[in-house]
Amino acid sequence: MEKYISLQNLEFLLYDVHQAHLLTQNKLFSNHTKQDFDLMLSSALEMGDRLMRPYNRIMDANEPQLVDGKIIVHEKIKDFIKACGEGGWISAHFPEKDGGMQLPAIINNACGYIFNAANYSMSIFPFLTAGAANLINTFANETLKNIYLPKMFSGEWQGTMALTEPDAGSSLSDISTMAIPLEDGKYQIKGQKIYISAGDHNACENVIHLLLARIKDAPAGVKGISLFIVPQKKITENEELVSNDVITAGIFHKMGYKGAPIAHLSFGSNDNCIGYLVGEEHKGLSYMFQMMNEARIGVGMNAVGIASAAYYDSLKYAKERPQGRKIENKDIAQKQVNIIEHADVKRMLLFQKSIIDGSLGLLLQCALYADKEKTATNSEEKEKYALLLDFLTPVAKSYPSEMGILTTSTAVQILGGAGYCRDFNVEQYFRESRIHPIHEGTTGIHGIDLLGRKVNLKNGKAFKYFLRELYDTINAAENIELLEIQIDEISRNVYMFSSITKELLDKIEKYDIEKMLSDATLYLELVGILAISWQLLKQFVAVQNHQDENFKQGKIFAFHYYCEYELPKIQLIRNRLEKNDFLTVKMKEEYFL
Amino acid sequence: MEKYISLQNLEFLLYDVHQAHLLTQNKLFSNHTKQDFDLMLSSALEMGDRLMRPYNRIMDANEPQLVDGKIIVHEKIKDFIKACGEGGWISAHFPEKDGGMQLPAIINNACGYIFNAANYSMSIFPFLTAGAANLINTFANETLKNIYLPKMFSGEWQGTMALTEPDAGSSLSDISTMAIPLEDGKYQIKGQKIYISAGDHNACENVIHLLLARIKDAPAGVKGISLFIVPQKKITENEELVSNDVITAGIFHKMGYKGAPIAHLSFGSNDNCIGYLVGEEHKGLSYMFQMMNEARIGVGMNAVGIASAAYYDSLKYAKERPQGRKIENKDIAQKQVNIIEHADVKRMLLFQKSIIDGSLGLLLQCALYADKEKTATNSEEKEKYALLLDFLTPVAKSYPSEMGILTTSTAVQILGGAGYCRDFNVEQYFRESRIHPIHEGTTGIHGIDLLGRKVNLKNGKAFKYFLRELYDTINAAENIELLEIQIDEISRNVYMFSSITKELLDKIEKYDIEKMLSDATLYLELVGILAISWQLLKQFVAVQNHQDENFKQGKIFAFHYYCEYELPKIQLIRNRLEKNDFLTVKMKEEYFL
Repeated sequence: MEKYISLQNLEFLLYDVHQAHLLTQNKLFSNHTKQDFDLMLSSALEMGDRLMRPYNRIMDANEPQLVDGKIIVHEKIKDFIKACGEGGWISAHFPEKDGGMQLPAIINNACGYIFNAANYSMSIFPFLTAGAANLINTFANETLKNIYLPKMFSGEWQGTMALTEPDAGSSLSDISTMAIPLEDGKYQIKGQKIYISAGDHNACENVIHLLLARIKDAPAGVKGISLFIVPQKKITENEELVSNDVITAGIFHKMGYKGAPIAHLSFGSNDNCIGYLVGEEHKGLSYMFQMMNEARIGVGMNAVGIASAAYYDSLKYAKERPQGRKIENKDIAQKQVNIIEHADVKRMLLFQKSIIDGSLGLLLQCALYADKEKTATNSEEKEKYALLLDFLTPVAKSYPSEMGILTTSTAVQILGGAGYCRDFNVEQYFRESRIHPIHEGTTGIHGIDLLGRKVNLKNGKAFKYFLRELYDTINAAENIELLEIQIDEISRNVYMFSSITKELLDKIEKYDIEKMLSDATLYLELVGILAISWQLLKQFVAVQNHQDENFKQGKIFAFHYYCEYELPKIQLIRNRLEKNDFLTVKMKEEYFL
Repeated sequence: MEKYISLQNLEFLLYDVHQAHLLTQNKLFSNHTKQDFDLMLSSALEMGDRLMRPYNRIMDANEPQLVDGKIIVHEKIKDFIKACGEGGWISAHFPEKDGGMQLPAIINNACGYIFNAANYSMSIFPFLTAGAANLINTFANETLKNIYLPKMFSGEWQGTMALTEPDAGSSLSDISTMAIPLEDGKYQIKGQKIYISAGDHNACENVIHLLLARIKDAPAGVKGISLFIVPQKKITENEELVSNDVITAGIFHKMGYKGAPIAHLSFGSNDNCIGYLVGEEHKGLSYMFQMMNEARIGVGMNAVGIASAAYYDSLKYAKERPQGRKIENKDIAQKQVNIIEHADVKRMLLFQKSIIDGSLGLLLQCALYADKEKTATNSEEKEKYALLLDFLTPVAKSYPSEMGILTTSTAVQILGGAGYCRDFNVEQYFRESRIHPIHEGTTGIHGIDLLGRKVNLKNGKAFKYFLRELYDTINAAENIELLEIQIDEISRNVYMFSSITKELLDKIEKYDIEKMLSDATLYLELVGILAISWQLLKQFVAVQNHQDENFKQGKIFAFHYYCEYELPKIQLIRNRLEKNDFLTVKMKEEYFL
């Protein structure tokens, strides 16, 4: 089995960097030991090796098909979902009282990363079910919970998020799916949803849609959107499953991520589709947003998982492929060297490694904030971690997603012509990585979220907490020899981040919100780069006493590489953000010829 | 028919920027008028619309297949090749005395760009034949020319370049295909070639391979490689075609570029494959390299062609897709605006536009140098244009190729979820663009070529000529108002380029060649950015008196965009190139964990 993640690296990040084992000292997670965590990780890897990895390419080459109104997926998906149900993976993160393991998010996400890397398309089925179940568990009444959660946790029923409509993608306020109140408290649902991942398939016996719709006569915009459970099949009194008038109107054929079916669903075309309100009326979008951080961290993990698999494939190839000779020794009589000996190939590997190590560190950091929010003993501490998570979520979703395109592209480049052919895996990763800057909010949307909302959250409190986190790490690193230059450089960049943020906020008053936000995507990238350098510095600090000298050197080189090749981009972005020409605002449609 | 190139822009670049019509004043091209050039362009566009574009998606979805030892391609490819033969397109660039039109390279390449954008996979068939025919025409004897050229020019026979072998990709010195001299002056060929574009297919009746092989007992390395014509089918005395023991051993299934077959060929597995020496023994690689500039400019054009098609698709979508409202006006009662009104979408369009306009300008510039080399009236001038072309070839090949990945990726992003689905074209362009940094020399190879060879060509004469070209354009721009800041900025960057080049060359003596070249890929990017800003400045100057105000504004914004968002990267790269830590040289294989 070829390597797709490094367990050594994952354990280093979890324990040496993020001290995840200390969570067990807290009452909430006291049902676990570090040994339990280790067992979860090794079980995930075993499942990845056995149930997922062997079918990664096969699933890509054999897309789901819509046959007689039903989407047929690869047969091995059923085995995996079943194993996830039986092993308690779908509910692992849920409270014990609700049937879960009460596993910390950081461990849950680390296991998710292994699944993502093993077979991204396969990994999304239980991930989506867990997300939908989380909404039910948090906001639905006991009756609904009792009906839906057990079957979802067991993997018998699939869960989905049904948000997007043909005319409402990024603009959720324009959702038009209707919910008409019936006399028995249920609702009649009518509308179209598109791009619904796992929206229909034959590996589960029912699909439970967590669907956003507008109750008849509800206010316009986001304040009139409610959340519903809409099962594909209704449960009769005899516990039989019968049609709920949810029709699979189409399947989308995609560039990558091909093993997972993405459906176009038609609800209530025969006026016979029943939905169940979750929580209160008109609060659907706010419920959804409370779960959004989790989903978005998940997407970041998807991206890093795929990037990891591509990195290890290209590393293996570079170590085994002889081509050319060292540049200072072109003696043709000598054997060709493996391409990993060429500096430019090492550069391409370091690029991948630094991005992946930093991104994975950042995503686990976010998961840890979610855990610490839960274990916080006072409201101030609780707020602190909630704000840190809120602030970093757009960054942790977008940076790994955007960079995943570049790191998988670099993996293809290392394999050269072979990498462009379907005999190798890397081209699949390149295609798959392209989805992540799009779904769960495009990068542009996240830029606006960060600069337009998160920076000012609670009067800038979130921003200040993040700054403090950065300085804490810098301070922790200051006693390490040979690091002075990098520390100065990172400090300088933190200062630039801080000052440009203030300048940008001032632009609202001097100009307008559109102008202020016109380069928000660049600001998002700036924060992303800073966050990665912060995480790599943390890893640099934590690795100082590591026993494996090669592992230690790898971390040191990855950190230095990032400081040299990526970190300086902050200066450029800062320079751009300072400008007030508003080129992209002033550019007109008719000039594009 | 949706737009895939802008004829207005192409004509502006050819005539207003590069003054291509002035070539007709020269004897060599005096058989043409500007009207002829215009006719060629409009004919190319008509062919693109009629014969190519309608099959772009269909060919992608229906890859060539190897059936009973023969590769079967889409039936419409034959029509296009035939039309190219009948219209004189394959031989257009050849001298009239050899049966061509004696068309300038700049016009020939402009037409190629149209074909590339219309249907990249289809466009490569005649392009490859023309390249192979050019080798025959330049280096083979009259007998061989008379046998092969007419059938290649007519499109009846396909031409290929057969270089790569399983153990010799980037390292051509390791080619091991053997050529054993026979008594009649012919050679018996034996070996394996892989990744041969159009290496076998049923749209032509024969395939003529221009093949590199090593004559028995030849010196090792590049100095022992010879060039052969190896036809797939031999011609008998009765002009019948019979097997030449060239077996199609396999077909490569690729991520993109799927309409074109890439073959694994086995030559002489029954010891019955005959080859004909082209030119002299052991000079094969030098012949090949004399044609390489042309092929590499061609690859750059391929990349820009695909990027153009993606740009126009995303522009059309942005103009038609309503989503969200202006950021300062979130009134849900108002209709959604088209996404082109969002600043971030305009940023993504300007990114594509500036890269494409600049890259296309650069590639036409290179073609013009090739023309001017031919029309030069004295040896100094001839050398000047030859050196400029040599110097810029790695840049004009690599920058558009590398950036093509990013611009097509941006096109996908503009379409969002739709862009990820195969109902739209952009995902195809994203997959296709990934090949160009790999074939005809990887980006890493071109970096080494530029910094390790081209910069010092003729004691730095090529470099100096390029500097002079940059300053000529800067001087021409100095009288234009409102441009002072950009001119200063470009001048500053030209100075940085000049000084860092000298510093890098000094590193050979202080350190060693490996260290000096360790960041050659970054140096290549630096020169690429500078070259694009130079071309966009040229366009800025040339557009000043343009009658179409919208077109003019588009050029001005594209130039400003590039100066603001891309040009400053030179400073970063310069800073990196100045360092002497040699991180990527010092990094060791065992640290990658």
